[in-house]
Amino acid sequence: MVKPGQAGPKEMRSLIRRGKWDRPTAGVAMGYVQANLVILPGEYAFDFLLFCQRNPKPCPLLEVLEGGRYRTRLLSSAADIRTDIPKYNLYRKGKLERTVKEIRDFWQDDFVTFLLGCSFSFEEALIKARVPVRHVEENRNVPMYITRIACRPAGKMRGPMVVTMRPIPPDKVERAVRITSRYPAVHGSPIHIGDPSKIGIKDLSRPDFGDPVTIRKGEVPVFWACGVTPQAVILKSKPDLCITHSPGHLFISDLPNEELVDRPAAGGL
Amino acid sequence: MVKPGQAGPKEMRSLIRRGKWDRPTAGVAMGYVQANLVILPGEYAFDFLLFCQRNPKPCPLLEVLEGGRYRTRLLSSAADIRTDIPKYNLYRKGKLERTVKEIRDFWQDDFVTFLLGCSFSFEEALIKARVPVRHVEENRNVPMYITRIACRPAGKMRGPMVVTMRPIPPDKVERAVRITSRYPAVHGSPIHIGDPSKIGIKDLSRPDFGDPVTIRKGEVPVFWACGVTPQAVILKSKPDLCITHSPGHLFISDLPNEELVDRPAAGGL
Repeated sequence: MVKPGQAGPKEMRSLIRRGKWDRPTAGVAMGYVQANLVILPGEYAFDFLLFCQRNPKPCPLLEVLEGGRYRTRLLSSAADIRTDIPKYNLYRKGKLERTVKEIRDFWQDDFVTFLLGCSFSFEEALIKARVPVRHVEENRNVPMYITRIACRPAGKMRGPMVVTMRPIPPDKVERAVRITSRYPAVHGSPIHIGDPSKIGIKDLSRPDFGDPVTIRKGEVPVFWACGVTPQAVILKSKPDLCITHSPGHLFISDLPNEELVDRPAAGGL
Repeated sequence: MVKPGQAGPKEMRSLIRRGKWDRPTAGVAMGYVQANLVILPGEYAFDFLLFCQRNPKPCPLLEVLEGGRYRTRLLSSAADIRTDIPKYNLYRKGKLERTVKEIRDFWQDDFVTFLLGCSFSFEEALIKARVPVRHVEENRNVPMYITRIACRPAGKMRGPMVVTMRPIPPDKVERAVRITSRYPAVHGSPIHIGDPSKIGIKDLSRPDFGDPVTIRKGEVPVFWACGVTPQAVILKSKPDLCITHSPGHLFISDLPNEELVDRPAAGGL
């Protein structure tokens, strides 16, 4: 039995490829970059790439695979994007049609694949600095919420920002901001601190994706932009077809998290 | 008679629009961001956007205008990209066909416009820190060279990096690196220091674009990635049609250079 905390990225991808791991990847293959996935037919690729360029906090690009390519180069030299993710969501015209464990049967030659940074990459740095990461402590999927913050639209792509939330003790909020600021390629510093209602979140105990976590007395809810944002955009923009990872079930790369320190995310003005 | 050093961006763009200024823009409307221009038909837009994402040092995106749009939003709320640049180069199948002072007659509804940062934006900071900027001192266009450094290709787009060169006294090289590092959105830190032959430049007195400048005894040639790189890429990739600015003749925006400090350029791994 593989202990996911100890198993490396290659071993985890092999398990996933063989259908033996379909659970969330938080706390798995610790130390390595995990990536959010968006696959779109060619006709939507420019709009989505521009959307990422305009919204680097929720959509920091790590790697883009040109039309028809399903093997990564930068994130791993030995991965197949069609099989190496625990669970995929397949959307048609903005509706979730099904969740599947591989997508070889759905593959099209014009599919463009986008891999986006994930906040899991800065969690190890937070934990080392003794900032608690509750969903890791409680062995749950991170809680994710659809906000009322509108992303900057690009062509046909528009929609609200999705965020993750981590409850932080007040004396450690500054440290959490400082540490995560150094990881712009994986969402960087928080987008909001303290008042969920200000960003349109009504009830922290009912996340839109993932699991709720315990918020202890006095802890401050801190919100970071989340790579599930594209899925909220798909729901709103309704492309004919789109495949993503299932929230929390990410692509595990061979890239150490440390390589992302101070590395900029895509983004213009 | 307008003194270009004193005239603001609106005044300069008005002169340019009326055909009364077709000279280089170095040292003009000092204090404001200038931008390199690339316009491509829609079919090439994804490849070029991805090229920029993969090559953020030569191609740092400041703004992208979707198909058919010719008015900027972020760089200025009162500019027309078809008329507000002193000189345009029109390339067909990778060949320079003509240089014109406006492009309204060539405009197509599927044209996508890319505006890229320019190293002029960090020159004011260099000058304030008493690092000499020779081409400004000598009132010339900056010298630009095609190197043998290959950019990372994207789809149909491939080609060599173009660089600018500034001769720097040895005791100020460190300062020049430190200052320009803070401007990643306008090419950032140098890509090479000291030996032109190492990056394929044979003769500093014969730049591929712009004017040669005086190199004083002991000065070190320092090279920064240049937004003319797309033109070298166009020569090599041969799209059916492409319009760029004429090297050195840039778009003058309303954005103060200071706003670019520590602002990241597009770019993934």
